[in-house]
Amino acid sequence: MSRGKLIVLEGMDGSGKSSQMAVVAGWLTDRGHRVISCRDPGSTSVGDAIREILLHRHDLQMTAEAEMFLYMAARSQLVREVIVPALEAGSWVVSDRFLMSNIVYQGYAGGLDPNQVRVVGDLATGGLQPDLTLLLDVDLDTVARRLNRPLDRLEARGRDYRQRLQEGYRCEADRDGAVVIDATADQATVSQQIVVAIQAAFPELAGPGVDG
Amino acid sequence: MSRGKLIVLEGMDGSGKSSQMAVVAGWLTDRGHRVISCRDPGSTSVGDAIREILLHRHDLQMTAEAEMFLYMAARSQLVREVIVPALEAGSWVVSDRFLMSNIVYQGYAGGLDPNQVRVVGDLATGGLQPDLTLLLDVDLDTVARRLNRPLDRLEARGRDYRQRLQEGYRCEADRDGAVVIDATADQATVSQQIVVAIQAAFPELAGPGVDG
Repeated sequence: MSRGKLIVLEGMDGSGKSSQMAVVAGWLTDRGHRVISCRDPGSTSVGDAIREILLHRHDLQMTAEAEMFLYMAARSQLVREVIVPALEAGSWVVSDRFLMSNIVYQGYAGGLDPNQVRVVGDLATGGLQPDLTLLLDVDLDTVARRLNRPLDRLEARGRDYRQRLQEGYRCEADRDGAVVIDATADQATVSQQIVVAIQAAFPELAGPGVDG
Repeated sequence: MSRGKLIVLEGMDGSGKSSQMAVVAGWLTDRGHRVISCRDPGSTSVGDAIREILLHRHDLQMTAEAEMFLYMAARSQLVREVIVPALEAGSWVVSDRFLMSNIVYQGYAGGLDPNQVRVVGDLATGGLQPDLTLLLDVDLDTVARRLNRPLDRLEARGRDYRQRLQEGYRCEADRDGAVVIDATADQATVSQQIVVAIQAAFPELAGPGVDG
């Protein structure tokens, strides 16, 4: 039995990642593959407890370093408990975010040295790298419209922050050979680009689906 | 105003750390110093939330890597939110555990490479090192008696684990120039050794207390 593949979807909030996660998983399933979908942080009991601290404890003030290490803890568990066993069992794994998000959010946009986050990340993942990373790249006006926030003073700061995220993502995508998808288009067009990218990365998948 | 000093007490459970923490803080206070006592992990809101996951969520299976990163997250926050501001304000800080525990528990006893834990630890602490580390070294029979556990099969494994802790602590103490205190003796004798070690490390403290 051949080892499965790890596909990661990256991009900022408002890039449409969640909808496309379902499209990718469905498309692979249609081709007869077992597919595990996960999200980072999360998808383990430890990861969910950490996710709770990271995303829902708005009372907690947190340094960028503490934040970075919490993401690393969740990812360490996710890799060893879910992703590696699934890949070894021949399943395909589709993950909503992975190490690149950590490098971009806490590094480029959060003020930590991206290289240091990358070094720590290598310990967290045990050296596991995605077989394909798809960056859903979206223009900032579209993000603002999708997130539907008023253009006040905070929104202005938000835009600056999102610009650092966008630039960070583009740098990392270039560095890691990720495929950049123009996610400003409508959902069906984006899905089509994603399928083309997956077929190009894995030629063995180029044929029609099991019902095709 | 001169910068304060960081004193760390290290040692395994049953070494009597908690009682000696109070002694050290009291002794320094008697000499007219402002003293902040803290524990790692803990002593911040983020750290307490993480401590809850680490020490009280017995339902969670956790890899050594995830555990290591959770301790690092708590320590990152503790250093930046509590320890560094206190030192800069001229206070003395006494901490119940610090990075050495992480290196010993997740490294020597937990199977991770101690050097890797040290490298990650340097990011978590921002390079901050204790001005004095006191290792409460205690023989394993005494620990077993103090912890009052029955000598069953688990206890046998427990002893093996504690032996790795003891050896790890001794190696790290030697490496870092920590002062090893024989903590098998009674509490008053141990306290006396600790005070002697503190006076030797900080000659400016050698005089009598404010009421001495």
